[in-house]
Amino acid sequence: MKIINSTPRADGFYMPAEFSPHYGCIMIFPERSDSWQYGGYAARKAFVQIAETIAQSERLTVCASQKQYENARRLLSDNIRVVEMSSNDAWARDYAPTFVTNGSEIRGVNWGFNAWGGLEDGLYFPWDLDDKMARKLCDLYNKDMYDLGSFILEGGSIHVDGEGTCITTEACLLSRGRNPMLTKDNIENYLRDYLNVEKVIWLKNGIFNDETNEHVDNICAFVKPSEVVLAWTDDENDPQYAMSKSCYDILSRETDAKGRSITVHKLRCPKPVTITAEECGGLDTMDFQPTRTPGERLAASYVNFYIANGAVVMPFFGDPADEPARDLLAELFPEREIISVYARDILIGGGNIHCITQQIPIFGGAE
Amino acid sequence: MKIINSTPRADGFYMPAEFSPHYGCIMIFPERSDSWQYGGYAARKAFVQIAETIAQSERLTVCASQKQYENARRLLSDNIRVVEMSSNDAWARDYAPTFVTNGSEIRGVNWGFNAWGGLEDGLYFPWDLDDKMARKLCDLYNKDMYDLGSFILEGGSIHVDGEGTCITTEACLLSRGRNPMLTKDNIENYLRDYLNVEKVIWLKNGIFNDETNEHVDNICAFVKPSEVVLAWTDDENDPQYAMSKSCYDILSRETDAKGRSITVHKLRCPKPVTITAEECGGLDTMDFQPTRTPGERLAASYVNFYIANGAVVMPFFGDPADEPARDLLAELFPEREIISVYARDILIGGGNIHCITQQIPIFGGAE
Repeated sequence: MKIINSTPRADGFYMPAEFSPHYGCIMIFPERSDSWQYGGYAARKAFVQIAETIAQSERLTVCASQKQYENARRLLSDNIRVVEMSSNDAWARDYAPTFVTNGSEIRGVNWGFNAWGGLEDGLYFPWDLDDKMARKLCDLYNKDMYDLGSFILEGGSIHVDGEGTCITTEACLLSRGRNPMLTKDNIENYLRDYLNVEKVIWLKNGIFNDETNEHVDNICAFVKPSEVVLAWTDDENDPQYAMSKSCYDILSRETDAKGRSITVHKLRCPKPVTITAEECGGLDTMDFQPTRTPGERLAASYVNFYIANGAVVMPFFGDPADEPARDLLAELFPEREIISVYARDILIGGGNIHCITQQIPIFGGAE
Repeated sequence: MKIINSTPRADGFYMPAEFSPHYGCIMIFPERSDSWQYGGYAARKAFVQIAETIAQSERLTVCASQKQYENARRLLSDNIRVVEMSSNDAWARDYAPTFVTNGSEIRGVNWGFNAWGGLEDGLYFPWDLDDKMARKLCDLYNKDMYDLGSFILEGGSIHVDGEGTCITTEACLLSRGRNPMLTKDNIENYLRDYLNVEKVIWLKNGIFNDETNEHVDNICAFVKPSEVVLAWTDDENDPQYAMSKSCYDILSRETDAKGRSITVHKLRCPKPVTITAEECGGLDTMDFQPTRTPGERLAASYVNFYIANGAVVMPFFGDPADEPARDLLAELFPEREIISVYARDILIGGGNIHCITQQIPIFGGAE
């Protein structure tokens, strides 16, 4: 594994869209008892379901700590690879490498990671093991790596169409906890150089009370070039309404890198999901403080799905909106099976299915 | 990675000789401060030299602990893969899988490991992380595995010619710390079934004061079918003399699995190597006890070499016997470069170059 000192743009490498064919996928086995209920027990059950679904159509590697390796190995099927790797938590989307390709080779991009805001408004301390994962994963897969460790970015804060367009949110990328010394233009230039995109569409906001500073991957995702789904509510009294409306307005008047206008499919959210006192009781404290408060609203959204080669793996919450959401995705992804996984135990950790996965694109049909 | 419940013999898999072509090699980065001087610092330098040599002609993966990962990554070249994996010490030969092939597929064999004798006369406690490595490595390489965890065996206690013959030592395999409930016949049957050999040649002894209970890989190794090198001394007053003489006599009257008599090349040992008080001072204590005593004789032997695809990597000790040993190996391996590495800092840990490597055979020319 070599560290490459140029940029993907300079070398003709770019990040493909998630709906392009994958070589495989990376996940991390959860165990943090202040993020996940009952010592991670509840989340592990959901992660295993998601892993098994993904592994039906692509090669999956699950990273587990020394302590959890055997448990992961026992719970996961034979066709899933389990490797020992240390981490602070289990958000593969945010700390696994962003993979880029030139059509015949794959390389990784290592962004800096500071637990969604560092000492400013980050979610835990320390985050050193997470931050090291991108490099370890490039090493594991024998991929050379662009090292942009000085620039803070999580994989969940960007989405690309693979044809020159990136969507992100100002709430996250311009937050004081990320890269406060850089201007919006500086940040956009990093995205252009390292994702190799021509156009960055800046949404203002994401999902209400999303503790990642409103990652784009919880509110808006490409389903094909020039078509997105947007998390939506029709309830004008919900604080989410103004946030989604603002995104809708921006997307409606924007064009993508190829000059096409963007079709926006409204993916209606479930009714507000709040954490119960009993659920809070299943979480250990962090630095002597509870990590969640009973009644706290969780950032529930159907947009947080993962597009596998053969399936779209989407969350459901036991809400009347589950079925229409599933129907819309089935319509938008006619060639993929839509598999819903009950995701409340992942949502309690602060994210959802997209947040705990990272795809590796395929090249030349082989590896 | 699947666990296979039959045996390699039943499935037509066998262990190829070390001099057959390799896919690659596995090593472990040393750090145990009671095994290796100066917190492992001295051994790491030697391990790096050996790793770089091997990586010139085959794919090398080095397993490093979470704490040593970055140091390993920095010290080793780009073409060497470093993966995070926990272990109790650094003897890849003894706890990495024994790989077997049917000519088109590779599988691993997981033997039980108890630190060379368990609570009877083992060398450290606990050994749980070492014992788990074979399974983790099969998982890492996506190889199915025969699990013989109930049978204690180290990779260094056997050598095969790839044509039906295994050589081992009674001192080790019949020791009370290995499989005391099994007869010699029982043990031989395990070797027949899991290495898929027809004949086991039992030497009585290995190298004097070899704390592995005299592993065969320190005294005798195949250089081709029906030809071995044997560690030797001409000094009849050296306790090694009777041990080597006994091996010589057995080998001289034995035939291999194909009925061929065995040519024995005497590979003369260096003068007795003893550890100094200063060197002992560089080792931390284990359970409040020193692991070595000044003046203690170390099990120095040139037989403990590794046969890589393009080189034989052999130890040297700064002894007049270094040069003749090198010359003999050059004669016996005319198509390979002979590379000598100063190995005193490895020997102090209790083994040598063969002990810290494990080859993975190649099949069909590809992987």
